[in-house]
This record gives sequence, C-alpha cells and structure tokens, in this order.
Amino acid sequence: MPVGTAGAVKGVSPQQLKETGAEIVLANTYHLLVRPGVDAVEALGGLHKLMAWDGPILTDSGGYQIFSLSGLTRVDDDGVEFASHVDGAKIYLNAEIVTTIQNRLGADIIMCFDECAHFPSDDTQLNKAVKRTIRWAQQCKQAHSNKSQMLFGIVQGGINPDLRSYCADELVKLGFDGYAIGGLSVGEGHADMIKTVAHTTQFLPKDKPRYLMGVGTPGDIIAAVKAGVDMFDCVLPTRNGRNAFAFTENGALRLRNNAHINDTRSIEAGCDCYCCENFSRGALRHFFNVGEMLGPILVSLHNLRFYQRLMGKIRQLIEKNEFAEWSVEQLK
Amino acid sequence: MPVGTAGAVKGVSPQQLKETGAEIVLANTYHLLVRPGVDAVEALGGLHKLMAWDGPILTDSGGYQIFSLSGLTRVDDDGVEFASHVDGAKIYLNAEIVTTIQNRLGADIIMCFDECAHFPSDDTQLNKAVKRTIRWAQQCKQAHSNKSQMLFGIVQGGINPDLRSYCADELVKLGFDGYAIGGLSVGEGHADMIKTVAHTTQFLPKDKPRYLMGVGTPGDIIAAVKAGVDMFDCVLPTRNGRNAFAFTENGALRLRNNAHINDTRSIEAGCDCYCCENFSRGALRHFFNVGEMLGPILVSLHNLRFYQRLMGKIRQLIEKNEFAEWSVEQLK
Repeated sequence: MPVGTAGAVKGVSPQQLKETGAEIVLANTYHLLVRPGVDAVEALGGLHKLMAWDGPILTDSGGYQIFSLSGLTRVDDDGVEFASHVDGAKIYLNAEIVTTIQNRLGADIIMCFDECAHFPSDDTQLNKAVKRTIRWAQQCKQAHSNKSQMLFGIVQGGINPDLRSYCADELVKLGFDGYAIGGLSVGEGHADMIKTVAHTTQFLPKDKPRYLMGVGTPGDIIAAVKAGVDMFDCVLPTRNGRNAFAFTENGALRLRNNAHINDTRSIEAGCDCYCCENFSRGALRHFFNVGEMLGPILVSLHNLRFYQRLMGKIRQLIEKNEFAEWSVEQLK
Repeated sequence: MPVGTAGAVKGVSPQQLKETGAEIVLANTYHLLVRPGVDAVEALGGLHKLMAWDGPILTDSGGYQIFSLSGLTRVDDDGVEFASHVDGAKIYLNAEIVTTIQNRLGADIIMCFDECAHFPSDDTQLNKAVKRTIRWAQQCKQAHSNKSQMLFGIVQGGINPDLRSYCADELVKLGFDGYAIGGLSVGEGHADMIKTVAHTTQFLPKDKPRYLMGVGTPGDIIAAVKAGVDMFDCVLPTRNGRNAFAFTENGALRLRNNAHINDTRSIEAGCDCYCCENFSRGALRHFFNVGEMLGPILVSLHNLRFYQRLMGKIRQLIEKNEFAEWSVEQLK
C-alpha cells in the first residue's frame, strides 16, 4: 500500500492516488503525533477526513520511527521515552497510549506497539525486544477500545528463526485480526529477509492477513508472496519517483539522464497511467532538469500504477494457480 | 491565463489545470530557450505535446526575462546579447531569431520581441526602447512564417502617455492579430498602471484582443478590464498558492497560520474547486507545516479556480451590461 507519511502520499492527490488503483493507504502514527498532534487530527474529523481518503487506512504503531528517527532517551519493559526529531520535545509512549492514539486517529487497521531492534542485534537484545513486543501486544489488545478497527500483531525477532516462531506463537495465542512481520528490510539483505519470512509465515494462521512491513522492491514482493505474505507497504514508488527513478518491466529508468532529452517515448509502452498517457521521457527529463514539481508528481504516479499492476497480476496468477511457475521466472 | 514557466504550470497537471476552467496557458520563450532548448522542444513534438496541453498556448517574446533575469552584455538597435541565468552561456537574440524560435515552439499566439525598460527610466531611455520595440515589431512581422499562429504586438513606453500613444499608433499601422501592453506592473504602482492602460487602450482597435502582460491582483484585473483590457497572464495564483496564500472573496488567507490548526472549514465556502471540496484549512495548514507538496498543489488549484471564477464573473457582467456598476463597488 502507498505510504502517506503525515496524512498525504507525497505530492499525490487522493483522486490521483485512486486512479492508480490504490485501495488502502498507510499513515504514520509517529509523524502525526509529532505534527499536527492527535487533538488536531481528531478536531479535523479524523484521519479519513484530514487525508480526504474514503478508502481503508492503516496506521503503524510508531515503533519503527521511534527506534530509527527520534532521539531515544529511555526504553524499558513499560514503555519508551524519546525526543521528537522536529523540536526535541520529550514524548512518552507505551502500549496503551499508542493504542488510544490509534483509536483516536481512526484508521481501519491499527498496529500493536512493538520494539524494532536495530540490525544487527545479538540474541540477548533480540530476545528482550521480542519479550517486550509480546507483552506490549497483550496490553494493546486490552486497551483497544474501538472494535470497528482491526488490530494487527507484529512479529519481531530479527533473523533468528527460534525467536520468530516463539513470537508468532505467542501472538497467535493472544489472537489478532491480522499478523505483521516487522523488523525486516533493515539491512539483513534479500536472502535472509525471505528466509525469515518463509519461516515465520508457517506459524501464522492461514485465514488471517499476513503483512510484511516496509517491503519492498518488485523482486522482494514476489519472493515474499511466494513465502506466504498478503500485504505490503513501501515508500519506494513515491520516494524513487521523486528522485526521477521510474520502475518498468524492463528495469529502472533514470529520467534525469541526458539520453532522454529528445526521447518521445513514454516511460513504459502500454502503461495506462496518467504520466505515460500524456508525457514523454524527454518532457519528464526536462521537468526534473529545471526543478519543476510536475516531474516528481508524474513519476510517482507512474510508479504507483506500476506497483498496483504488479500486485494485480500476482492476485490474478494466484487465482489461476500460475503464480509459482511465473515467480520462478521473475526471480531468476 | 496561468503561466507555465518552462512547459508546466508549477505543480499542477494539465488535467487538474483544465478542471479549474483554464482555457489558455502562457509559456516562457526565454526559459524554454535556456532549458531544454528549441531543438529538444521540437524533437519532442512541440510545446503542446511537451506540456500535454491541447488547448491554446501563448509564448512571450523572452524580452521581459532577458531584461530582468539574465546578465545583459550588449543591447543595440539590432538585438541583444546576454548570459543565461543558468550557466552563463552567451546567447544572441534579435527580432527575427525570436520569431523563428516561437514559430518552432509552436504556440497558438506568439509575441513580438520588445525592449522592456526598467522602472524608473527617463524619457530618453524610454524613447529609445519604444523606437526599438517598433523596429523589432516590424521585423517580427516580416519574419513570421507560420500563419496558423497569431502574432501580437507589444506597446511599450513606461508611464509616458505620449510614448504609449506613439508606440500604439505605429504598431496598429503595422497591423497585428492582437495588442499587448508590456512594461507595466514593474514598480509604477496601481494608479499609474491603470492610468497608462486607460490611455493606451484608446489607441488600440476595438476588434482585436488587448492583453495586459504580467497583471495582476484581482483589483488590478477589475480596474484594467474597466480600462479596456481583455486578456491577462499572471503567476500570482500559483506563486502565492505555493506560499500558502489563498485568495478568497473576503480577502487573503495565510494557511501557515496556527489559527487554522483545528479549522474544519474549506478555504472558501461554496467554492467548487478540488481543494475546497476535499480539504479543511486545518489539513492544508498541516501540509504546509510539515513541508508536504500537496499543500502548495492544493492552494494553487484553489487560487487558479478563484481567478477563473473572477474572469467568468467579469465576462458575465459585461454581457449583462452590469460590469461598470459592479466594478465601482469592487474597487472601493
């Protein structure tokens, strides 16, 4: 799903986003908490109203940003104190607070508070993070007061298979509406990531959605679907789009390249996105070259459409029982 | 008309632009000449194709930017040598070259090459600029080879009424498809601008469009229509929009202001633009506050719609013979 950092998928209007085929958007609890704050989101009618997005929204728990972006000042079994990356303000969060915040933001799917260990972490650190993640998941479930929202648990455990299966088992015992695999795509590499995913999904129920957080490239996604994952979120389509990097079936195009100056072709032949139906590679190169905002916007739209088409194709192949065969070819 | 500096109205897709009611777009010859260059525009299928805009386009002559943006190295009666503001490259332009460039860019309306004197200039300088502007207009008319494009003359002369009427008379003798009033809105102030416009339009034929270049605020436009002008171009809707400044019938809103944090109202009650139909002032304030591109985009869209509605209202009032009365009230 496209990532709407702080209430918007960067540079893309909800109308344009819908036209790419997107059905669900992720919003970051941490960013919304820091700015504009939960009171403001609530006063403005909740997240759907703020974003002008009437489809499903998922909020993350903030865990990932707290452990990567902010200045951590204290972590213990009860919660986390950290300094906002914007103004240094001290913020204290625990499982109950994070759940209440997400209840108030009003997304359709909310996530348990988790500890996302750095990579690499030794087994002692990973074990501590897993224990806390399980403890916090239990507290989140208890605190969760808006039953119209689905609550997902997050499996942690680095690339340690025993910790992953332990964490998954404990979360499944608690019982959630869906299960995420967190703490991957943080530097472990494709092979270890997929190995960990394939191991972890064995311990997750087949009738609940499995969600791999923060992943990934088209190749990552195909391999992870093969390993049993249903849902993904990723900034790549828009972040790369803003940097003039376009995804195509034949690999990447870098649109700042002078080679495109007179190129009348669209980014991808046959693509039905607004960018490809209207703009040449030469025009896009020019927009990036002069710093015109339309460049980042248009390539983001193409990349979002590319990802939606990839996911649509995967769904279709699974239904026709042809996914396994196709994926072998793709992952060569 | 909205201004598409170098082939795009900043941050706004042609589809979104059309939805504001815009029918014609201005593109800057100078900017396109510097980047990506006329060869590239031509190779990419011309300006309509590059911009993905199938409605009318007007290109300016480049005169204004040459005399304001670039490092001028030599001006004489034959032409101008200047250094590109991007890389300092020396460029020589004269009336014939500018006309050929505009023929090749392929807009629907093109402008004569003119000398836009700085404000203030003394009468000797203004007189010299007017003489050159007339001489160059004659050369442009001769050089103009694509008769499917309309060619407009530009009246110069600062705020000197004798020079303005002289310049207008000479251009009318040469005969153009329309007449622009250039060299205003450069620091002379509203009163002197409107006085000069009202004086100049008396010397222009009633059956050809009159175009006031680079103007202006809603008040400037209403007063200039009253003074006999039909067409305008201006960056205000988008430049101000990018700076969180929204036009409304009740004056300006500055959307970065903290006062808007919990404000669920749209920018303007009853406005049918995409921004007002979907986003609250509080959401827009938040987007500007976190540096989200959607803020500048949405307020640009509102401002463009605001200007289109203003122009539509003026046309309607003129047809109903109620413009004069209404304008008195507006200009109080």
